[in-house]
Amino acid sequence: MASSTVQPISLYSAFDRISAEIDTLFEHLLKAPEDARARLYDAMRHAAVGGGKRLRPLLLVTIAGLFGVERGAAIRAAGAVEAIHVYSLIHDDLPAMDDDDLRRGKPTVHKAFDEATAVLAGDSLHALAFELLADEAVHGDPFVRIELVRILAEASGPDGMAGGQMMDLEADKQGYDLHTVTRLQQLKTGALITASVEMGAALGRASEEARTALRGYARDIGLAFQIADDLMDVEGDEEKAGKALRKDEAQGKETFVTLLGLERAREQAHILTEQAVGHLHGFGAEADLLRALARFIVERDR
Amino acid sequence: MASSTVQPISLYSAFDRISAEIDTLFEHLLKAPEDARARLYDAMRHAAVGGGKRLRPLLLVTIAGLFGVERGAAIRAAGAVEAIHVYSLIHDDLPAMDDDDLRRGKPTVHKAFDEATAVLAGDSLHALAFELLADEAVHGDPFVRIELVRILAEASGPDGMAGGQMMDLEADKQGYDLHTVTRLQQLKTGALITASVEMGAALGRASEEARTALRGYARDIGLAFQIADDLMDVEGDEEKAGKALRKDEAQGKETFVTLLGLERAREQAHILTEQAVGHLHGFGAEADLLRALARFIVERDR
Repeated sequence: MASSTVQPISLYSAFDRISAEIDTLFEHLLKAPEDARARLYDAMRHAAVGGGKRLRPLLLVTIAGLFGVERGAAIRAAGAVEAIHVYSLIHDDLPAMDDDDLRRGKPTVHKAFDEATAVLAGDSLHALAFELLADEAVHGDPFVRIELVRILAEASGPDGMAGGQMMDLEADKQGYDLHTVTRLQQLKTGALITASVEMGAALGRASEEARTALRGYARDIGLAFQIADDLMDVEGDEEKAGKALRKDEAQGKETFVTLLGLERAREQAHILTEQAVGHLHGFGAEADLLRALARFIVERDR
Repeated sequence: MASSTVQPISLYSAFDRISAEIDTLFEHLLKAPEDARARLYDAMRHAAVGGGKRLRPLLLVTIAGLFGVERGAAIRAAGAVEAIHVYSLIHDDLPAMDDDDLRRGKPTVHKAFDEATAVLAGDSLHALAFELLADEAVHGDPFVRIELVRILAEASGPDGMAGGQMMDLEADKQGYDLHTVTRLQQLKTGALITASVEMGAALGRASEEARTALRGYARDIGLAFQIADDLMDVEGDEEKAGKALRKDEAQGKETFVTLLGLERAREQAHILTEQAVGHLHGFGAEADLLRALARFIVERDR
């Protein structure tokens, strides 16, 4: 699928390309078998194919590309991260959790199917992520594959994404301060964004120095992403976002916006973006997409 | 903890020993952090510590022992299998799934905590399983570790346990025949039992010949286990079982008992047990525990 004429790839065409590639991967992996499991595969495809920004896959694949990793292999690792992200959305949307009816402009899985199927579709995507990483198509060296497993498992478990979601559920009971909201968001969304970056670097066997710089980049865009999300919840357009907004206020939750105010939150997001770009100073023009991505994250409307 | 006097270890003391070891591992791994995630860790410990037969860990550790694997390492791999098993019980017990209030003689996680915490505790144990396998404490060779990941991920995903649970949920709509119920059970419980055996063999770098024999053993005890479960659902004592029984009939589900009748189901379980023991003919007295285990599986009352 590589273009034969060399030209600067814009961020939007990069998003389009990775979305198509991830859709193709999931369509291939999630062909429904001819038995009662067909419903499970249908639910997995409903959630995993044809929606979302694919921010995490784009990060992973772009960073792997900096180190010359074959794109097809990077796409499979990116599919693992996206499978974890999608499973978390399915479970977070459940009535017992955030109780959302709409996601990526479509009915959520428990609405389109039922709650039991949604629980299982999430669980199945969770397992699928590690199946993908164990397969040698991701990398010939088992040492690299097991490193990918370690990064992704840590980032998605109780010391990562799931732990952040627990803190979020407890938020209304506890009245968090800025420090705690920052920690919550570093776990809930930051951990998987950082994992995407680290997995790209691990696939490319990047030097310790490069990994440290990229980790700094990831931490900053992760936090900027969340502040932008909080701003969108207040200022955004539900139709563009493809999901329900104004939820934080309705639930009386502390967010970066309630704790910092609109103005300072916006400012903080921009500071983080510039800081993220600063971490890339050792990389040349081939990291321009990552620079554009950092800026996009605070300017997006969905 | 090894005894200094050599003596035949009875099956019951083997169960006691592995239970204590798995409890110690989970107590160690699941120390609650001093933040709002404490509730998540409490829920994970509630489900993972101090209950259950630990059949899968016992299988894995015993088979690893046949090939001289260091016990501490095997216990960590066994903890991964048990973490997957426990997560599946938490999710299966949810109101949207089997809606059970009692498990291993204790309130289920969504009863003792709440549904959202139960979903997250399951998800966290799921991720923890792969964290455990990625850690080099399980085996120094990354090739062995990634093989463990592959076996466990495949056995727990849509082509394994989660797929079997989906078939089970669809059972009342479709009216399964014996072939389909067998397939369902091979996925729902058989896959993880077989994975326990295969992981023990992988840890011990067993020969292809030994693995084939052990896989045959696993397949037969897995099916015998499920037939025994169906028999227990009809004939068992709820207090001993520590969970609600007579559910299959109430739900009008086809089981080995409804399809074969009590007599033939009992007979079939015993045939499978003898067949399982037959697969072990190439192993000496060191496999006696596995032989006893095969017989225990059809004679247990919990």
